Amino acid sequence: MRHRLKDVAERAGVSVKTVSNVVNGYVHVRPDTRARVEQAIAELNYRPNLSARHLRKGRTGVIALAVPELDIPYFAELARHVVTAAADYGWTVLIDQTGGRREQERVVASGITDHLIDGLIFSPLALTAEDLTGLDGAPMVLLGERVDHGPADRVVIDNVAAAREITSHLIQLGHRRIAAIGSQRTDEGASARLRLTGYADAHRAAGLDFDETLVAPAAAWHRADGAAAMRGLLTSGVRPDAVFCFNDTLALGALRALHEAGLRVPDDVAVVGFDDIEDGRFSIPTLTTVAPDKERIARLAVELLANRLDGDRAAPARELSAPYRVELRESTQKVSALAAGVPPQ
Amino acid sequence: MRHRLKDVAERAGVSVKTVSNVVNGYVHVRPDTRARVEQAIAELNYRPNLSARHLRKGRTGVIALAVPELDIPYFAELARHVVTAAADYGWTVLIDQTGGRREQERVVASGITDHLIDGLIFSPLALTAEDLTGLDGAPMVLLGERVDHGPADRVVIDNVAAAREITSHLIQLGHRRIAAIGSQRTDEGASARLRLTGYADAHRAAGLDFDETLVAPAAAWHRADGAAAMRGLLTSGVRPDAVFCFNDTLALGALRALHEAGLRVPDDVAVVGFDDIEDGRFSIPTLTTVAPDKERIARLAVELLANRLDGDRAAPARELSAPYRVELRESTQKVSALAAGVPPQ
Repeated sequence: MRHRLKDVAERAGVSVKTVSNVVNGYVHVRPDTRARVEQAIAELNYRPNLSARHLRKGRTGVIALAVPELDIPYFAELARHVVTAAADYGWTVLIDQTGGRREQERVVASGITDHLIDGLIFSPLALTAEDLTGLDGAPMVLLGERVDHGPADRVVIDNVAAAREITSHLIQLGHRRIAAIGSQRTDEGASARLRLTGYADAHRAAGLDFDETLVAPAAAWHRADGAAAMRGLLTSGVRPDAVFCFNDTLALGALRALHEAGLRVPDDVAVVGFDDIEDGRFSIPTLTTVAPDKERIARLAVELLANRLDGDRAAPARELSAPYRVELRESTQKVSALAAGVPPQ
Repeated sequence: MRHRLKDVAERAGVSVKTVSNVVNGYVHVRPDTRARVEQAIAELNYRPNLSARHLRKGRTGVIALAVPELDIPYFAELARHVVTAAADYGWTVLIDQTGGRREQERVVASGITDHLIDGLIFSPLALTAEDLTGLDGAPMVLLGERVDHGPADRVVIDNVAAAREITSHLIQLGHRRIAAIGSQRTDEGASARLRLTGYADAHRAAGLDFDETLVAPAAAWHRADGAAAMRGLLTSGVRPDAVFCFNDTLALGALRALHEAGLRVPDDVAVVGFDDIEDGRFSIPTLTTVAPDKERIARLAVELLANRLDGDRAAPARELSAPYRVELRESTQKVSALAAGVPPQ
């Protein structure tokens, strides 16, 4: 016999609502109450039937999140926020790692899984607008600015403004030879292009020349790529006094390469990243970075998807913007200045 | 009109096999050939129908990987290996993040998604053997030793032996007050229990007392938890000369706390972790750790699942073991000793 929520509530001597709170993992349940409910669940071998209300609507209750690489911590952190935001709609999130390859992304976009899922939140690296033309799969929300004028709902952050702001901060600190690590071919990375634009804008606004020898490419954005690019800059005789890395993992690799070269951060070279991943809050030194509001990006994406599912599927695509902030940490400021709350010069 | 692989091959002037290699992302295709195929794909707006051969078998071609937390880098790295190994079988992998909550894990195990997926690779934190009794969902392969005598195929590493080996290494280096960070209640973490057992075994084998005041709990295994536990040990007056953290993120947090306390690693306190995540190869200092063979774990899990799908579903459950090794890095050895290739004392 299959037991229901009500049976668990009766056995535990609590309300159905309390059982529901335990099942859904809400934190505000008292430990002893939680223990009683969990015991009742175990005794009855109860299994929640989360999909029932979705099935009534002809849905699976499952959405997919497609990202290039889960071992880029930004995407892993984003995934956690999407799972949390989707739980408010009772959705299970399944995550698809595309590797950022255009063909795999086309498969995802064209809905290989469209009989499996109600909707898709998609962070593409290589996909083009034409790949999305004429699709009739599940509703889709795009993350980021890879697909410029796509036909789908989209959540973005202002990459150009964010890159300009953090570069300007380095210029205000007195740095004049600011390297950029992470540039890519146009067909590879929209984020790279936009962040490089912001970097160039900041130089122009300060009356500084854009020096191409200070820009280092990185086809992938892992620690090893950042370390290799930093070593390349140091051995080529280009001697930067600061480095803007286009994501935090590149920056953590650059920190390591500077350490191995006997250079001090920030005294000899200041380093900034982008993404505000947890690693940069614990690295030695901690990492100054652009912090996109990942929780908000996830929430907006889930809301756009929910609106599309319950509303007019043919309505014009919407674009929503999530905020960011610049987080100042040890890699640009001396510890003593940070501790004393001294603002940057 | 829907184009087929053959149409792409004709337009690109290559074999069908070559188109297939491009679509599947194999690396050994010549760049100019790849470019020609990609152009033909774009011109024909071709979309590969990867699921056809699965559908012929009555399958979806989709398997799920369920892990507790993707922002624990170990699981993100494992996910990448599972995606790679599964690609050899033409499987798409969807990833489910359970949060390690028993109720969500029960939902996954009982096959909320069993009409969506062909099989499940599952790394549970809280699930019990009784949760798995009498399930009739898709075939399942368990990772790790959480469920002791479960009815499912399983891939493990020898946690006790690995923990004993890395602790013995610290003892051989001359450390006598070795703290352990990451212990948990019995119902929370099997890995914690097994690694603590190995730690205790190493002490016993060396004729050293097991000192409970050196063991610090950590309910979650993030950097912040490792930093807090390390601070707790330092302020409580327990003064370890080495620390065994039960995973690398705990260890990276401990490194940060030691840095903030003005202690040098490894000169004042040696630190070791577990998992060999990429972060620990670039941290300052780099991290000595137990390196489970994640690629092998993933491959064995996928092979067990494939055998179960194509073979006898009622056959007795199999358990396979993946190897590990101890990686010596700066957090236990002076840089000069490492560079000179000096073996540990």
